[in-house]
Parts: sequence; structure tokens; C-alpha cells
Amino acid sequence: MKTYLDCLPCFMNQALRAGKTATKDEIKIKELLDKVGCLIKDIPMDSTPPETGDLIYQKVREITGVDDPYKKIKESNINEALALYPKLIQVVNNSDNRLLTAIRIAIAGNVIDLGVGKEFNILEDVEKILEQDFAIFDFEEFTYQLKNAKSILYLGDNAGESVFDKILIEELGKPVTYVVRDVPVINDVTFEDAISSGLDEVAEIISSGSSAPGTILNFCNNAFIERFNSADMIISKGQGNYEGLSNVNRSVFFLLKAKCGVIARNLGVEENDIILKSIDLKK
Amino acid sequence: MKTYLDCLPCFMNQALRAGKTATKDEIKIKELLDKVGCLIKDIPMDSTPPETGDLIYQKVREITGVDDPYKKIKESNINEALALYPKLIQVVNNSDNRLLTAIRIAIAGNVIDLGVGKEFNILEDVEKILEQDFAIFDFEEFTYQLKNAKSILYLGDNAGESVFDKILIEELGKPVTYVVRDVPVINDVTFEDAISSGLDEVAEIISSGSSAPGTILNFCNNAFIERFNSADMIISKGQGNYEGLSNVNRSVFFLLKAKCGVIARNLGVEENDIILKSIDLKK
Repeated sequence: MKTYLDCLPCFMNQALRAGKTATKDEIKIKELLDKVGCLIKDIPMDSTPPETGDLIYQKVREITGVDDPYKKIKESNINEALALYPKLIQVVNNSDNRLLTAIRIAIAGNVIDLGVGKEFNILEDVEKILEQDFAIFDFEEFTYQLKNAKSILYLGDNAGESVFDKILIEELGKPVTYVVRDVPVINDVTFEDAISSGLDEVAEIISSGSSAPGTILNFCNNAFIERFNSADMIISKGQGNYEGLSNVNRSVFFLLKAKCGVIARNLGVEENDIILKSIDLKK
Repeated sequence: MKTYLDCLPCFMNQALRAGKTATKDEIKIKELLDKVGCLIKDIPMDSTPPETGDLIYQKVREITGVDDPYKKIKESNINEALALYPKLIQVVNNSDNRLLTAIRIAIAGNVIDLGVGKEFNILEDVEKILEQDFAIFDFEEFTYQLKNAKSILYLGDNAGESVFDKILIEELGKPVTYVVRDVPVINDVTFEDAISSGLDEVAEIISSGSSAPGTILNFCNNAFIERFNSADMIISKGQGNYEGLSNVNRSVFFLLKAKCGVIARNLGVEENDIILKSIDLKK
């Protein structure tokens, strides 16, 4: 997905939120915003938003000296999600369609996104999304590919959401490789967060090799690219991964909630809609 | 009022909104955002936000070639307010305290602010503000000064709001000079807008001599400064004028709705609170 004009002020907002989370030193935060402001002119509008996100969070680390500003918040979100886990398993157990319910739960987890700057209440959002209609619903194709897949590559998004991913992974019934960011960026799930979420019990965990808050193939390491190209089925969670991969030349299933107007417009849906979208440009 | 860190992304948002209102040419809007992004590093945090606002809207005019992007919206807001005018006069006529009701109406008009980027519904907001408690309420001092004033300087804010100002001016019962921006900036009231609002029927209309979206004394012409210094009583409407004058060394009454978190924090109130605040630093 390209960068939209609306993304540009959003980059400044993200820098401000990350800066404030990292430090109380207003001079450093001003320096960060000065640098990000100057960076706007160098953003090619045909680049994807997480490419700029990567640069911004590098600046956050450089200027504040804090590598993982969202560390405590991530831990707290993971713990909150783990506390909900038994209840969510019951919801799956009591449902008519275990797989679809687990997909809904995995999408509900996508509200735990500190890049977007919206408030969320995990429990309330889960309850809402369990009842919500999908705006894009390629479920039939999903079940078809799932049936035929020997293994699945699952691209993680946020820490906390990762616990919800575990529930879906348990329902897929196939060997799953769960992909995490190489280093902390916003509240995106890292190797450590994936372990805290219990994902090692249900999946192999690998890094994308990239620090960007979304999967940008050019930024990923060869080991990941090989897995990406050869995977029978890919499930991609969240906005950042969609932004990076929406024009990729292979089949991918995107599971997300459209949390900003730009994504919604790109997908042709309304803000806050939930999405299970298949792309297959080879077809 | 100084510039807060939160103002910096807001400047980018304002530039985007103004750019989109002025033109559909995305290349020009990108150029505008590039320029405003670069300008962030040159903003002294002890300058007032409308000083930067002035620079931003100069860039909007330069880059888009449109001097008054909000012209049609202003006309429409004025017409909407004029259509409400007879009803609002009735509200004053039926009230126990005509002056206080007219003050509430004048503050209600302050929701018509296209700089802040919040949606508003004039009629709904008026009804709400007629019932709302004031967070700061220096009404006693206001009535005392009003009683003793021979004439009043009234600093206008937005077009449309200007019609609501007319209602308050009619209740003041003293000669009033209504101050407008020298040129169009955002949806702020200009000479032409004041005439369309019928303010020439109740007040003398003068320009501040400044193009900034708020009264910054250093930017105003001598004629205005003289009136400002010698006025018996000054009524200042809205956020921009408050931002410019909050530290001024004379008595001013600020009438506004706190429409963003930064203003609310500066005033020590909650967002959306309504304010009738007296300052008199000479005391």
C-alpha cells in the first residue's frame, strides 16, 4: 500500500506518542519531532507506510536512547490477554464454527495496536467483534487453502494480540511458523513477547529479520524470504503487515480490523470494519 | 500561551486540512506538508501557536495559489448562523438573565472552528452550551467592568461565530468595536464576513492588521494597538485569540470553548469545557 497524504501528519503523531512513552525530556521529544518533520520531504509517496515507520522508530531509539519504549505496556497487554485466554477458549468450545470463532478472536486481538493512537478495551472489543459482520469475508477460500496446506506461515503483529493468535493457531490443525519483528518497534510482537504469549507451545517462532512495523520483503532476511516464497499458506495479521504486503505477488490472507481511514479507504471498507481478505495476484 | 509538543503534529494536520480544502492537486499538498514539516524545527516552543499558524497559512496561500480556501464554507456557516439568529434572539428574550444567555450563545458560536478539525453541529452545540456549567466563570467581574466601560473592544474569531457575537454585542448596551483578521486565514472572520454577519449594524468594524489566526500584538498594526491599550474593556473570543493574549499585561475577558487538550491543560480545565475568564496581570 502506498503512503497517503493523511499518513504524513500521522507519522508526526506516532513520533510524539513514542517519544512521550520513551522519555519525559521535552527537549529530546522536540528534537525527535524536528527530525521527523524534516524527514517528511524525503518520503516517496509510493513507499509503504511501515518503511517510514521504520525510520521514525529508529529516530526514537537514537534520540531518546530507549530501545523498547513500549516494553512495560506490551507486558501488561500480554498479561491482560493471557488472563482472558481461558474464557476465549471456552468461547471457541461453545461455538458452532470453531475455526471462524478463532479467526474472529484473532482479529479482535488486533485492537491492541499502539501505533494507531486509538483507545481500546480488550474485553469490550472482543465481545463486539464476535458479533460483528465482516466487510470482506474470503472464508471459503481460507478453509480451502487451509485444508490443502501442509504448513502455514503466520505473520504476527502486536504483542498481546499474539495471545489471541495462539487461539487461532490451535484451531488451524497444521504446523505453523509464527513470524515476529527482529527488534522491538512500537508494540509489535518480538521473539521474547511471542514466548511470553505461549506461542512456543503451538508454533515455531522465527524473526522476519526486519525492524519495520510491518512486513516489507526488501527489509527481511533471506531465511524469511525463503519461507515466505515456499509457504503453502500465509496468514498476515494487522495493518502494518497489510500495508507492506498488499501488492505482493502471491496468495496471502489478511486478518485485520481497519483502524484508520486510510486503510479503510485502501480496502474499500469503513473504518472499524473487520476483514478476512485473500489476495492472489498470480491468478 | 506557549507552543506545546502536542501542537506540532496538529500543525501538520492543519496544513493537510487547509491544503485539501484549497486544492485537489496532491503534489501541491505534499509540497505544503514537506515545507510545514521542515518548519517544525524552527518553531521556538515559547512562541504562541498562532505565530506558527500564520506561517502555515502563508505557505498554504503560496503553494496552492488559493487565498481563501475556506471562503465557501465560511459563507455557508454564516448563512446557517443567520438562519438561527431569530430563534437565538427568542432564547435571549425568554431568559432570566439576558446578558448571561447572550454570553453562552456567543461561546456556543465558538464551535464553528475549522482550525481544530472537530466535527460540529451548530444547533446541537448551542442547545448543549445553553445548559452547560462554566469551568471558569468570572461573570461578576465581567458585569462590573461592563457597567463602568464607556466602550468595548471585541476581538472576533470565526466566521459564523460572528453572528452569535452580534447577539452578545446587542446585549452589551455600549459602543462596541469589532476586530477582524486583516486577510482570510482558516475560517477566521474578516471584514467582509463581519459585514455578511450583520455586525456593521451593531458595531464599528476594524482590522487587527494581522494575518495570524489569533491576536499577536507584535503582528498587529499601530491603529489596533492604540485601541487595544486604551480600551475600557476587551472581550476576546476563541482559542486563537486566547493563545496570543493569555500572557498580555492588561485586563481581557476570554470567552471560549476549550476544544483541544492543549488549551484545556493550559486553562486547567477539561476538554469541551466553556470558559468566561478574566485576566488582569496588572493587579
